[in-house]
Amino acid sequence: MTPPPARVGQPATEIDTPALVIELNAYERNLDRMARGVAAYPGVRLRAHAKTHKCAVIARHQIARGAVGVCCQKVGEAEALVDGGVDDVLVSNEVVGRAKIERLVALAKRAAVGVCADDAGNLRGLNSAAGAVGVQLPVLVEVDVGAGRCGVAPGPAAVALARAIAESPNLRFAGVQAYQGKAQHLYDADQRRAAVDEVNRQTAAVVQLLREAGLPCAVVTGAGTGTWQFEAGGGVFTEVQAGSYVFMDADYGRVDGFPREFEQSLFVVTTVMSRPTPGRAVLDAGLKSLAVDSGPPLVHGRPGVDVVAVNDEHTILSVADPASGPRLGEQIWLVPGHCDPTVNLFDWYACVRNERVEALWPIVARGAVQ
Amino acid sequence: MTPPPARVGQPATEIDTPALVIELNAYERNLDRMARGVAAYPGVRLRAHAKTHKCAVIARHQIARGAVGVCCQKVGEAEALVDGGVDDVLVSNEVVGRAKIERLVALAKRAAVGVCADDAGNLRGLNSAAGAVGVQLPVLVEVDVGAGRCGVAPGPAAVALARAIAESPNLRFAGVQAYQGKAQHLYDADQRRAAVDEVNRQTAAVVQLLREAGLPCAVVTGAGTGTWQFEAGGGVFTEVQAGSYVFMDADYGRVDGFPREFEQSLFVVTTVMSRPTPGRAVLDAGLKSLAVDSGPPLVHGRPGVDVVAVNDEHTILSVADPASGPRLGEQIWLVPGHCDPTVNLFDWYACVRNERVEALWPIVARGAVQ
Repeated sequence: MTPPPARVGQPATEIDTPALVIELNAYERNLDRMARGVAAYPGVRLRAHAKTHKCAVIARHQIARGAVGVCCQKVGEAEALVDGGVDDVLVSNEVVGRAKIERLVALAKRAAVGVCADDAGNLRGLNSAAGAVGVQLPVLVEVDVGAGRCGVAPGPAAVALARAIAESPNLRFAGVQAYQGKAQHLYDADQRRAAVDEVNRQTAAVVQLLREAGLPCAVVTGAGTGTWQFEAGGGVFTEVQAGSYVFMDADYGRVDGFPREFEQSLFVVTTVMSRPTPGRAVLDAGLKSLAVDSGPPLVHGRPGVDVVAVNDEHTILSVADPASGPRLGEQIWLVPGHCDPTVNLFDWYACVRNERVEALWPIVARGAVQ
Repeated sequence: MTPPPARVGQPATEIDTPALVIELNAYERNLDRMARGVAAYPGVRLRAHAKTHKCAVIARHQIARGAVGVCCQKVGEAEALVDGGVDDVLVSNEVVGRAKIERLVALAKRAAVGVCADDAGNLRGLNSAAGAVGVQLPVLVEVDVGAGRCGVAPGPAAVALARAIAESPNLRFAGVQAYQGKAQHLYDADQRRAAVDEVNRQTAAVVQLLREAGLPCAVVTGAGTGTWQFEAGGGVFTEVQAGSYVFMDADYGRVDGFPREFEQSLFVVTTVMSRPTPGRAVLDAGLKSLAVDSGPPLVHGRPGVDVVAVNDEHTILSVADPASGPRLGEQIWLVPGHCDPTVNLFDWYACVRNERVEALWPIVARGAVQ
């Protein structure tokens, strides 16, 4: 783990760069907005997605504001969060392989831990490991409602898998997960709504099938920052798994509609390390501090200064007006292109309020990919 | 730091995934090939680029085979490497800001540490910090020979900066760095040679100008895996900074000519975590284990199984022949799209020889971006 980039109490201008910075006022407003927003839908709770922030401090803030718990994608993330004081974690993903399953059931002895499944053979592994340590593991059937990734079809296959869970002595059928990741980043609200109308329709149908089979769903979980109001308002989901709303990013900035209510609270703070020509500045952050899978970062609060390229260790900026252009050594704040994989590059959040470092939070699940 | 993904002695099939794996036979052949290759050019030494591997063990292997030392891009990387037993490190980049410069000169008391510069104001900061701790810091002038990134123009500006270094009591003018990063990944050998012909021409001219000004260059450093033979054979460079040759990646696999002599030795080993349809398999590695800035990873040794998409936590594969397609739980080895930023996602190399884990090497400079 690298050392923290600042000391508490320092001015933000003294943060060593590149550093991952949370602007705390915007961050807290985002948490409050989502907590109030979800509370307006009776029977729906937030299960905040911790794969975005990988931080036990933030997970506890979300739970303190009413989230039922968090979800994450990896057993290693769940371990780090439980060790950090989070007591309800859904692994919103399949867990395959004996070593990982043994870690999962060990964790389920210490906290409320659930998991998803889409394969009957996998269930046998889960059941046997759970029995060996004496836990009854909650398992959700993952259904594919259009994402084209994991999950069984939301018809008889889902009922068969749910029944297999219910009939496994050491497993408990907990409900279904129906997540349509592709819908989150459709920029147009009508397109997102149409995609989620289909999600809601298919999910309602499979929940009905399960109920008719004597397998009622205690939990129906899914959704994300881009679409959560559509799932929450559809009458079938009981949990929304939004994650990015905490931070936002350049790509979510292009999504219209209600996600716009959330503010950018996450920044990669950089320094101008070279001013080789009047029209060019070079920053000390590159691909090892900025994920570019969803496009490059954006320069924050510096009109006329734009990202031209992101190299391994440098970001190259164009400077429209050299007279007011950034000087060597100046801090430049960037809005990351995609928050989740950018967070995964850093070991610390430097948390800033009113231009001063107020806290340093470790990203305890950074790199916890196993 | 995450726990290692394996135990020494385990079969490779038991490595927990996703994991970063070095195939040691290919790795050692790559080290030997480059050592022999550079030795064929009198007056030229390898200064291996450690930004690729971020590992003190590998740096020591390179030095044991004749490298004059290593280079890296960040003070934090240099600190981790020196702490790991590497005694000659060039920071092949500008170091800007008081805190970073103080760390740089502190390190220069413990090892042979040099740095690049392209700004006279920056030199004053370096000189003053070096004086404060009583070291004489070697400084190279970075010249821009076509990369359009950092560096002064290779003419009178370079001479003026070199003179300013030579006249700074606590700095020593050590030579020039001329690196053309864009040339490395031109797939066509003739295009690469043409780009480096221009690099050699401009670099020779500035070295001549400096000599005429009474500022002889002890070191002329640059080049990379894609072009190193062109710089090494051009008669002006004394050091080649190749890094990727150790591992290679999917993008270097598209570069023709002599880089093809190096073998793929780096893999991200994954597991099939879902087999939702006969034509689709899903792997347990996504953007948090695979950098996609230079394109997606490639499936290794599995014809008819191809990468369709890389999501945050999953890679989706198409399976042409479901009958022989990968089964749930099977390991799939991927060739990373781009080695450097992929390495930076992991804390450990699991080193494999003859299908067995032989060593676990910590990636000590992972995340050392400051």
